[in-house]
Parts: sequence; C-alpha cells; structure tokens
Amino acid sequence: MALIFSHFPFSLPSKASPFCQTSLPSLPNFRFPTSTLTRSSVRSSMDSDGRPGFKDFPYASPPIKDLMIDLISTVENRLDSLLLPCTLPQDVQYFENQSGTAHASLLLRSGAPSSSIDFMLSSWLHCELPTGAALNITSLSSYMNSSTDAPHLVIEFIQSSPTSLVLILDLPPRKDLILHPEYLKTFYEDTQLEKQRQVLDKISEAQLYVSPSLYIRSVFSPTAVVLRVDTSSSGGDRLEQILRDDVSNAAQEVLNTWLSLCALGEKQDIGDDEKACLKKRDSLYKSKSIETDIGSSLPRMFGQEKADRVLEVLQAIL
Amino acid sequence: MALIFSHFPFSLPSKASPFCQTSLPSLPNFRFPTSTLTRSSVRSSMDSDGRPGFKDFPYASPPIKDLMIDLISTVENRLDSLLLPCTLPQDVQYFENQSGTAHASLLLRSGAPSSSIDFMLSSWLHCELPTGAALNITSLSSYMNSSTDAPHLVIEFIQSSPTSLVLILDLPPRKDLILHPEYLKTFYEDTQLEKQRQVLDKISEAQLYVSPSLYIRSVFSPTAVVLRVDTSSSGGDRLEQILRDDVSNAAQEVLNTWLSLCALGEKQDIGDDEKACLKKRDSLYKSKSIETDIGSSLPRMFGQEKADRVLEVLQAIL
Repeated sequence: MALIFSHFPFSLPSKASPFCQTSLPSLPNFRFPTSTLTRSSVRSSMDSDGRPGFKDFPYASPPIKDLMIDLISTVENRLDSLLLPCTLPQDVQYFENQSGTAHASLLLRSGAPSSSIDFMLSSWLHCELPTGAALNITSLSSYMNSSTDAPHLVIEFIQSSPTSLVLILDLPPRKDLILHPEYLKTFYEDTQLEKQRQVLDKISEAQLYVSPSLYIRSVFSPTAVVLRVDTSSSGGDRLEQILRDDVSNAAQEVLNTWLSLCALGEKQDIGDDEKACLKKRDSLYKSKSIETDIGSSLPRMFGQEKADRVLEVLQAIL
Repeated sequence: MALIFSHFPFSLPSKASPFCQTSLPSLPNFRFPTSTLTRSSVRSSMDSDGRPGFKDFPYASPPIKDLMIDLISTVENRLDSLLLPCTLPQDVQYFENQSGTAHASLLLRSGAPSSSIDFMLSSWLHCELPTGAALNITSLSSYMNSSTDAPHLVIEFIQSSPTSLVLILDLPPRKDLILHPEYLKTFYEDTQLEKQRQVLDKISEAQLYVSPSLYIRSVFSPTAVVLRVDTSSSGGDRLEQILRDDVSNAAQEVLNTWLSLCALGEKQDIGDDEKACLKKRDSLYKSKSIETDIGSSLPRMFGQEKADRVLEVLQAIL
C-alpha cells in the first residue's frame, strides 16, 4: 500500500469476488495459502478510541514489524525537520471495514518547503481472507518534488501466510533511462543497489515476481528487488530468518542510498522545461497509481463509502 | 548480435579472458556447459569464396534455423520493397577470426525513404569455446526512424549447448511509458504480447533471465520475453520440442504484431519537438548498444583489426 496501493503488486481483476468478504479472489501470479497467518501482536497500544497506533504494526510478522520500526526511525533521524507532521484526519489515519475483517493505517508526512521531498507515505493493511488466511501489506514510500530529478523510494512487504512473502525494494526512476544514460549511471550503476539485488536473488526460496500490471512493471528501475519468497518447503522459521538475515540489511541499504543520494543529495539546478516535465510525470505517476490500485482494491476491502472518503482526502493532498 | 550485439544479453567483464581463445570466460548469470554443440548443417551452400550465405545459418540448431528462415521470409513478404538491398561490404557480410574458431554473418537492409524503418539487421555468430562447447547467437532486429514513435523489434536466440538457450522477444519502447500511458496502452496493453510472454513463462524449464547490464535491462518493454531455458534435466530433444512447439509460434506472433502495428501501422503526425526527441533517443540507443557490446565483445572474438573494420562500416551506416 505504497502511495495508497500504488505498488500493490497485484491488480485485482474486476471480475474477482470482493475479497475479505465471500470467496478467494483470483490473483494472477499470487498464491493464497490456506494456512492462517497468526497475529504477531495484540492491540496492546490502542488509543482511547480503541484504534491501534500506526507504529504498532499490530498485524505484521515480528521481523517485518521490527524492520519497519527501524526504517521509520532511520528516516525520522536523518530527515528530522525536513518532514512536516502528519495532517491526515483521524478517520483516514486508521480505518476498518464494517465487519471488522479489514484494517488499515496511513501515515503521510509532507516535505518541508526547503526539502526535495513531496511527501512520505507509510501504511499497513490487514485483511482476513475467507479461507482463514490473512493478507498483510506494509510499506514505506517517498515521492520527490520537482526541485530534484532524484528517484522516488518504494519499500513494500506483502505477506499472505507465514511462509509467503512478496518483497519490493526500489528507487523508481523519474526519467527515461535510455534518453538519460548519466541518470542510469548516477543512481543505479554507481551505487550499491545492484549488489543488494544480487544478494537477495541468491536466496534459494526466492524467485522474480512479475506483476500482472504492465504499468507497475514499467515503474521499476533495473536494480529493483521484486521477489516472491516461498518457504513452504523449507519448514520452521525460515521466512523469519530470511527477513532478519537478508531482507533487513538490504532494505536498510536501499533506504540509506536513497537518503544520501536523493533526499539529502546535492541541490540540483533543474531548468524550467525539465521541471515541467518532472511535474507532469510525477502527476501521472500518482494519478495512475491511484486509478490502478485504489479504484479497484480499496472498495472491495473497505466498502465504497470508506474508499471514497480515503480517496477524497488523499487526492486533496496529492 | 542484434544491432551488432546490441542486445547481447551478457556484457563480458573486461577482466574476462578473450573467449574463443584460451579459457572459459566469466559470464555472470550465464552457464557454459561443457558439452559440444553439434553443427546443425554442413557448409553445403558456400559461395565461390568458400563463405556460407547468410540464410544458410550453418551453425544454428535445426529448429532455430527453420524459425529464422520463416521469420525472414515473413518480413520479406510483408515489407517487400519497403526494405532496400543489403549494401554491406562482403568482408562485413561474413567474417571470421584468424584461427577459424569464430564466424559471423550480418545482413543489414535500410528502410526505403517512404517506410518508417531505419534499418533491419539480421545476424548469426558462431564461436567455439575452449571447453569444446560452442556459442551460437542468431538474431533479427529492426530499428525505426523518426517518422513514427512505434517500437523497435528484437528477436534473439543465444544457444551455448543443445540443452541451454537464452531467448529474447521484444518490441523495445521508444518513449518513457510512465510519461506516455497511451503508448503503454497502444503497443503493450492492447496487444497480444503479454499473452505470448505468459505462454513461454509457463514452460517448466524456463526462468526469467536478468542481464548483468543495467542498460540492457532498461531497454526492454514490460511484455518482453527474456528467458533462460535449461533442459539439461529433461533429457532427449526437449529443447528442440520447446523451440518448435512454443517459441516458434510466439516469435511469429511478436513479429506479426510488430509488422502490423509498427512497420505497417497507420502513418503518424510526429511534431518537430517529438521528432527531435526520438532522433536523440534512437541515436543514444544505437551508440550505447555499440559501446556496450562491440566495444568489449567483438575484439575478443575476432581480434581488434576485424572488430575495428566492422565497427567502422556500421558506424558509417548507422
């Protein structure tokens, strides 16, 4: 649920039954095991209205929860006052469906006027499936403004059982890499991103994940980590081990690259024509993401009224 | 060897020993089995100088030879006078190294002034390896001119043993797909390209191939077929069966899509600014391809003098 589902790696076909409601959805290239995903923590830190706080990650598996807390802490420490406080209304910071089977929380922090960040968005989503399994999506994304051409950031974990994970780590480019070879060199060839991708690619239970959305496929950089990890044959806590031993380190490295090179990189001199082009591209990127994801997914999980409310608030901000 | 190695899916690191000479090269993500690839046909149709004709494909495996002959026949029938005769000098149409362990043939046909094709390039390359195995690369590619923004074409087969194939089928885009969503829709979402990709992706011996070159990864479309097929555990003629049953049909479909939609599609009204952008991008695409591929690969296979000669002729034409 990066950029509110923007990189939700599977776009539900419209013919799918509403998930979280009656039947297993038809998800191309994505398996929904029937085992139940246990809740990793109880709602021990709910607010006075009984709502979990964003940073509680009440449904994430322990290694994902720990990693997300580390990542957000790194962002807050490094960016500090470059990020403004979250101004989302309470009913968009946390919401659930009528039957209480789907829950989500959003944290959106705009960049300060002096920063090169448009906004950062963190989210978690939990959705019980009719089979007894549950879908948990946890993400941290950043979107740049037109004072820089530096890449965006996407970190996303989609877990549908204790043994199944789709993992996305990327700095999506904001320019055509064929027309701008120096951009390819600066942000991808001259960084350690490919090394991280190779480390994760070597995990024997991992295979490349191909999103059914051609748009989503087009968004990623050539060093993107887009993997499906299936440890159902490995037994025990293998997925937790992979998350703690390999994924955590790679995610921190990707985040640190983005922080140093993009969010806190040297100020650039962007001409008016280029700025206009970046604005147009970023606007399309955001609107297309919302169209692709919220338009189909959020109403099915949370009902049309709640989806409309979230969409309205986000469109006003974005 | 499309666009003279332009999509050669592995860029040899400069530290690699000259292959075809002394030792097995270090090819990331690419395995060189030790079994010898048998020559599929003898040089029965050599010209008076003892050189094989381009369409003889003297070293390709029988199904690849048959498929290439079919593909080229389809192109020639459909495009007819839209392609001018090949004007490459004889010593560039066919060349070999001093020791006779590496052979290559090129066929380059420029588009007629009324066509939207800059040029089409077909090639085959055969290189004996010190292990006794051989590398055979066979390709058919087309490059468009700036009278259209329609995608290029790449069809390429890289075979390093009777059980190992890297396969590339794609219509590489000529525009940023995020900035131009209508382009994504026209050439990729509204065509059958994704269907073909999915058919080939289902082959149990196939897995996604990731080029070590970040530039090459950036070239492909979201529906690109970029697969490695390894039938070493399947026994018998399984690779031949896959080529005849699955790959041939997919390659014909990709070619037909390109012919109908790109080479023979409706004439477009391309503005001056867009034309300049296409020209710049296409020029970078060609020069970067040559730099990536010929610069490192051809001298190792054929020696510096021959590589310089081929490069000089091609640069003058391109």
